Amino acid sequence: MRNLPSLLDLIQDFSVQNPFPGNFSELYEPCTYMLTLGGKRIRPALLLMGYELFRDEVETALPAAWAVELFHNFTLMHDDIMDAAPLRRGKPTVHTKWNTTTGILSGDVMLIYAYRFLNQVGEPELVSKLMKTFNRVASEVCEGQQLDINFESRRDVSIPEYLQMIELKTAVLLGAALEMGAICAGAEPADVQHLYHFGQHAGIAFQIQDDLLDTYGDPEKFGKQVGGDILQNKKTLLVLKTMEIASANDRAELDEWMKTGADNPEEKVAAVRAIFDRNNIPALIQAEKERFQKTAFEHLDAVNVPVERKTVLQQTIGDLLGREH
Amino acid sequence: MRNLPSLLDLIQDFSVQNPFPGNFSELYEPCTYMLTLGGKRIRPALLLMGYELFRDEVETALPAAWAVELFHNFTLMHDDIMDAAPLRRGKPTVHTKWNTTTGILSGDVMLIYAYRFLNQVGEPELVSKLMKTFNRVASEVCEGQQLDINFESRRDVSIPEYLQMIELKTAVLLGAALEMGAICAGAEPADVQHLYHFGQHAGIAFQIQDDLLDTYGDPEKFGKQVGGDILQNKKTLLVLKTMEIASANDRAELDEWMKTGADNPEEKVAAVRAIFDRNNIPALIQAEKERFQKTAFEHLDAVNVPVERKTVLQQTIGDLLGREH
Repeated sequence: MRNLPSLLDLIQDFSVQNPFPGNFSELYEPCTYMLTLGGKRIRPALLLMGYELFRDEVETALPAAWAVELFHNFTLMHDDIMDAAPLRRGKPTVHTKWNTTTGILSGDVMLIYAYRFLNQVGEPELVSKLMKTFNRVASEVCEGQQLDINFESRRDVSIPEYLQMIELKTAVLLGAALEMGAICAGAEPADVQHLYHFGQHAGIAFQIQDDLLDTYGDPEKFGKQVGGDILQNKKTLLVLKTMEIASANDRAELDEWMKTGADNPEEKVAAVRAIFDRNNIPALIQAEKERFQKTAFEHLDAVNVPVERKTVLQQTIGDLLGREH
Repeated sequence: MRNLPSLLDLIQDFSVQNPFPGNFSELYEPCTYMLTLGGKRIRPALLLMGYELFRDEVETALPAAWAVELFHNFTLMHDDIMDAAPLRRGKPTVHTKWNTTTGILSGDVMLIYAYRFLNQVGEPELVSKLMKTFNRVASEVCEGQQLDINFESRRDVSIPEYLQMIELKTAVLLGAALEMGAICAGAEPADVQHLYHFGQHAGIAFQIQDDLLDTYGDPEKFGKQVGGDILQNKKTLLVLKTMEIASANDRAELDEWMKTGADNPEEKVAAVRAIFDRNNIPALIQAEKERFQKTAFEHLDAVNVPVERKTVLQQTIGDLLGREH
């Protein structure tokens, strides 16, 4: 059983040994650039961990792991255009460094390369099973992005709708990575299903936590500007929960703040936080996160392998979710 | 053996029986819209013809044929954004009718659906073979589009480079459609190869003919405005050939015209045509087209099946290339 850093080394070696073509540099260089922006590569690592629950020769699952990483980066490249995002991890996004045409076309070819690697995993029977999972989830991720876009111009988004959006946009791919790892290892269908649901629920919990940390995180640990969502008037789960349970006065006040710009950012963040605080929103959102987290780990517990094989996965997801182990 | 209209009916029936999902309408409606803009569906028809050279139960190849059609429409949707094209076949392009975000995301999901259909063709062994061809050609098409973009800002494009661009951007997919049809039918590798080269060479011939007809076509038969390429200062094969063989005076005159707008379109088209005419460009380009056309049909001749099975394919490609049969 390899730990996370050791699996990340394997993934890094695989990426170095399988670079994009050297010709057509205008097309492929942006792909390479995107992959070196310092993403955590959690999805390919999860795929390998899903494999290692059942079998040891994890190298055989590397092409599938890399396919998932390429798919994820394809979505980031296109999402950055749709969101008009100038920066990703502090560096220029592809469409900013080059242009929109490059962002579209290099993203397209990156998705096609994901399928190329998927087709290299092994026996056709296995590839066909992986394709089924991958295709299902790939279209779900597009559906999630579509919901996210729709929600920007809607004022009546419900919490179940929001949860469906983060599930499709983010969580299903985490589930699929684990599912695909288990499929590569020839796991039983019931275990494959449990791993999918483990990743899917953990992914939702992670996104809920992300909403919470954006407003309540430790500025030293969080990495992004705390309060960023408030300043951008994002309809996060904190806002939706407030709109669901708060008094008419508090709802109206929050509504007013969300119509303003960020002229006085500290005042705005403090005022919105005060509304959240007096409605007990942090605790309610934390409880929501823990609900998904609990279900996630129940699915991992149900996977029919010795507990000691689950340690790496337990610890990795536990760390991501800020859970002590 | 079915003729072209009969195969197109099969394809139409398949598309009606396999619609995009009814939910997430903002995502899937633009896909359906794109598919009903009246494309000729020549690629899926070629795939079925490639199949029918060898076997009769052509219905089994329909998911692969539809995958190729979806792929083609995905490229059109994204190309239209990159080219800032307002219209396609006289109707608004997807990014014009909706917006760029929709054009990107609906295009993405259409590509993913192409792979979904590909994975439905049959035995995993067959799907894996089809995937290999499809993935190879899908990335080549992106490379061709990249070359086309590069050429817009280059003044020194050579004829071999131009031919490589149209080969990658257009011809390889026609070849791949035939190749995939033959693979679905379990054809011998040598025949599969001949069919690929038949489609690839016919595709290049078709694109050369397209350049020629844009300037010299019969306005009644050619669906677009004759002289459109001249007015848009496009570096077509006619221009490149002139730059290769004409006198310094003629080259300079063409260069001057290509720096002007289209204030007096009739004068400009007539003047540029006169340069082409006195350098014998139409005949030279026609000869270039016939060279590829001849090679194409040599590959079809070499396919090891009774000649009577080749009639539909011969006639369809012959009609496309304006060849008498």
